[in-house]
Amino acid sequence: MKNFGYYMPVRTFYGTDCVKAHQDVLAQFGKKALIVTGRHSAKANGAQADITSALEAVGCSWVLFDQVGENPDLETVVAAGKLAQEEQVDFVIGIGGGSPMDAAKAISVLAANPGAPSDILFNDPKAKTLPVVEIPTTAGTGSEVTQYAIITLHEKRTKNGIVQPLFASVSFLDPKYMDVLSEKVTNNTAVDAMSHLVESYLNTAASQLSKEMAKIGLSYWKECIPALKARTYTAETREKLMMASAIGGMVIAQTSTSIPHGLGYFLTYEKGIPHGRANGMLMQAYLELFDKEDENVKAVLDCLGLASTEEMGQLMKDVLDCPETFTAEDLAYYTKRALETPQKLLTFPCYKLDEKDVLSVYEKSLL
Amino acid sequence: MKNFGYYMPVRTFYGTDCVKAHQDVLAQFGKKALIVTGRHSAKANGAQADITSALEAVGCSWVLFDQVGENPDLETVVAAGKLAQEEQVDFVIGIGGGSPMDAAKAISVLAANPGAPSDILFNDPKAKTLPVVEIPTTAGTGSEVTQYAIITLHEKRTKNGIVQPLFASVSFLDPKYMDVLSEKVTNNTAVDAMSHLVESYLNTAASQLSKEMAKIGLSYWKECIPALKARTYTAETREKLMMASAIGGMVIAQTSTSIPHGLGYFLTYEKGIPHGRANGMLMQAYLELFDKEDENVKAVLDCLGLASTEEMGQLMKDVLDCPETFTAEDLAYYTKRALETPQKLLTFPCYKLDEKDVLSVYEKSLL
Ligand SMILES: [Fe+2]
Ligand SMILES: [Fe+2]
Repeated sequence: MKNFGYYMPVRTFYGTDCVKAHQDVLAQFGKKALIVTGRHSAKANGAQADITSALEAVGCSWVLFDQVGENPDLETVVAAGKLAQEEQVDFVIGIGGGSPMDAAKAISVLAANPGAPSDILFNDPKAKTLPVVEIPTTAGTGSEVTQYAIITLHEKRTKNGIVQPLFASVSFLDPKYMDVLSEKVTNNTAVDAMSHLVESYLNTAASQLSKEMAKIGLSYWKECIPALKARTYTAETREKLMMASAIGGMVIAQTSTSIPHGLGYFLTYEKGIPHGRANGMLMQAYLELFDKEDENVKAVLDCLGLASTEEMGQLMKDVLDCPETFTAEDLAYYTKRALETPQKLLTFPCYKLDEKDVLSVYEKSLL
Repeated sequence: MKNFGYYMPVRTFYGTDCVKAHQDVLAQFGKKALIVTGRHSAKANGAQADITSALEAVGCSWVLFDQVGENPDLETVVAAGKLAQEEQVDFVIGIGGGSPMDAAKAISVLAANPGAPSDILFNDPKAKTLPVVEIPTTAGTGSEVTQYAIITLHEKRTKNGIVQPLFASVSFLDPKYMDVLSEKVTNNTAVDAMSHLVESYLNTAASQLSKEMAKIGLSYWKECIPALKARTYTAETREKLMMASAIGGMVIAQTSTSIPHGLGYFLTYEKGIPHGRANGMLMQAYLELFDKEDENVKAVLDCLGLASTEEMGQLMKDVLDCPETFTAEDLAYYTKRALETPQKLLTFPCYKLDEKDVLSVYEKSLL
């Protein structure tokens, strides 16, 4: 029998101006916060101003680290961890897409373990952490409700998840921060959210409850398809995308992701393709690894209003812009790399994927 | 905008023999456990033997408190709290229906605060607690996944919830423990689970996500209706009832319960009517407090395959045995008492309920 569990230890606050409405919860984490953001977006969308006002209203001081780039690397989180120690902060607040939110988690580990080597992120599952607060400003990663944080390791030419299962204590979900997102970022991150829902549903680790939850997320996402195709987003669309994204995070928190994430990372690292788009580019071929009559694939397609895997492929073409070209050598290299870290391959429920399967997904998707 | 949150900090393990399969998690809570049970059932259904074997396998010692009766009173949990202190236990394990599971939570508070008066349960929301592990052996209360514990106060002639929001750290859900339940207990507790799902769905505090989750629970429950009517239960029925019950707990953890629970307690205290049955007896009249065209009531009935509130009333008659008779004085007394503690009345979303409304629910249900 599968695990029925549905573990979700993050307190989420939801709605326009929810940071201000629930600012009192911040005081429980201490007197001083490190705010972790990218260079611009948290200022442009108003989230940084909201959180600093809230902190000041409840008597917390704060220090800003706004140097997180896309796909944060170990060097960046180590630098921020140093700052956190020097400033003796009590908790860490991540604002942004997955990059600052993931970085905030890694920083909270480094900050809580002065003197520890940065390896602690990858070899001590029980390392202490500071409390983490997350504020998503894109609708895709779901990092605000997952235990995951992905850090880029240049020496290994890939990304690595931190080994500590690190849930935020509190997340604030305010769709107004997403109003300023570009069409590209909106659609790429939306596809990330969809891929979380699909990969969780089709995962070996899926439970009845996680599947039902994923369906709810997919049904919200389906309602956003016309907007994603037209690249025009109402407040209602922003809200639905944010909910689909949060539910996607909640379900991958139960199951982890699967093949598109496992194979997509190399497209991100080697070609700079945004994470969500990379997943979307591989989605049709992923679904076609399953038996043609697979009930779970049918259920997923049905939730999205799609009649076939081909329609999924067409949908991804409609909502994503993919100018890259790939060579056979590229694909052989990605395949080799994917087989070196087979964890995600093991989440495929039907049979054991081999080199031929992996290469075929890349070929179908990228040539 | 409503809270979207879905907070569930309990790790649940699920399935036949799940205690044994996941016994390693027990060691994290310390070296010695207090096991809290009723007098007989935890022995008869095998749960006590499973947990003592598991504790011994991981090197934990244990002491047993098996004196929890139905609707545990303050005197009982105080006695068990003393035992826990004398024995210097590190954590508390509740096994049973709602009574031992609720008692375990209250005991964990008393045990963690030596010297504190028992009032601490009702006036110190931040009181320390020991870790709690819960093992349900009925499918109804949902206490294994809620923060609630109800304690009977004889001096006030009612029940009171402890003020600490106290989630178990871990719960083990094994449907085999429910095989030995009588028809009466099975059906009464099943109706408790259904009432949690309905009262959460129709609650002022319901969110989109909690409502969708409640629907999932109701759809499991619907599939059990023929078995509940026939009083014959397959292993599949037991499993579905256990899932409906756990989901019911998860959703009232988000929203709290509502009118049937608020008004039903007096039937339990004054007439000894089991808690779940009391809720069921009030269910039709509760639904009829809403507007005849209320979309949420329609959705709930629809999930259960019912066409009207009358069909709900008939279903409750079909699955419950209700021999009691009531006088007008009884109802006037319950009404007076219900208005003294109006918290549950405030969860009614449509208008402010007054004495006439409350009395009418009792009259429709009980005369
Ligand atoms: Fe992702
Ligand atoms: Fe109940």
